[in-house]
Amino acid sequence: MKNFFVYNWQVRDEWFLWSQQLTLQELVQQRTGGVGSILHTLFHIVEVEYSWIRAIQGEEDILYDFSDYKTLNKVSELSNHLRMEIIQCIEECLKGSVEKLVNVPWDDKNFTIIDILHHLVAHEIHHIGQLSIWSREMGMEPVPANYIGRKLFED
Amino acid sequence: MKNFFVYNWQVRDEWFLWSQQLTLQELVQQRTGGVGSILHTLFHIVEVEYSWIRAIQGEEDILYDFSDYKTLNKVSELSNHLRMEIIQCIEECLKGSVEKLVNVPWDDKNFTIIDILHHLVAHEIHHIGQLSIWSREMGMEPVPANYIGRKLFED
Repeated sequence: MKNFFVYNWQVRDEWFLWSQQLTLQELVQQRTGGVGSILHTLFHIVEVEYSWIRAIQGEEDILYDFSDYKTLNKVSELSNHLRMEIIQCIEECLKGSVEKLVNVPWDDKNFTIIDILHHLVAHEIHHIGQLSIWSREMGMEPVPANYIGRKLFED
Repeated sequence: MKNFFVYNWQVRDEWFLWSQQLTLQELVQQRTGGVGSILHTLFHIVEVEYSWIRAIQGEEDILYDFSDYKTLNKVSELSNHLRMEIIQCIEECLKGSVEKLVNVPWDDKNFTIIDILHHLVAHEIHHIGQLSIWSREMGMEPVPANYIGRKLFED
């Protein structure tokens, strides 16, 4: 499970790098499907991941508003800023009982930690797949998505 | 790991059902990005999954040609036809040593079983994300991609 997160974070960082070649207008331009723009997709991935992690930790949700993060640097910094807490939480989770039920403020149902972790992995990969279509529509090569052949860890 | 495959197969089957509302022309229409059409994407997901599973089993790769599968029924039947063998292989893999190295005919490198399984999960979710953009571009609601809240197994 942890490897999927490491993969997602690596691919996400490559999309942040890739995005540096775009203008802000291209980044926030409304596109069809998903959450509507490249920058909003990256923000959404970060924000959704952190909300679920806060819920797992039993902490109150922190609401981030995209209108406060409308530059590539701000979204990228938010992603970096939250990562260490997320890594620690995931490592703790995987050492403990992953069947523990978690209460979330945006749903009446409870969810197990392991289901939440699966959800986060699939959520990010899904949105990254969307970015790959938009990049081709812009005539640009997307970040490679392959899991295999990637070096996820330092030797 | 198995749950990710069950999720992917469920979502894939929902895309097969969703695709029934399209004409064959819409299904094979060239679109920008990915492997180029909705039907080809579904075929590609099935075909890639099976190739890696064959490699894990130490069996020779069977080459499927998309030109022989250019109807929704044919791709859906191929997906169903291969699934039982794939399920059995994955269950066997997860009982054994997932660090075992696998030789594949399309690459000089060897890959561990666990890396291959990660790759297959991410590969399918990525392509399904692409379908979701194309469906919105056609003015249609995509199949929901949420992992959480989904009933993956019978009670």
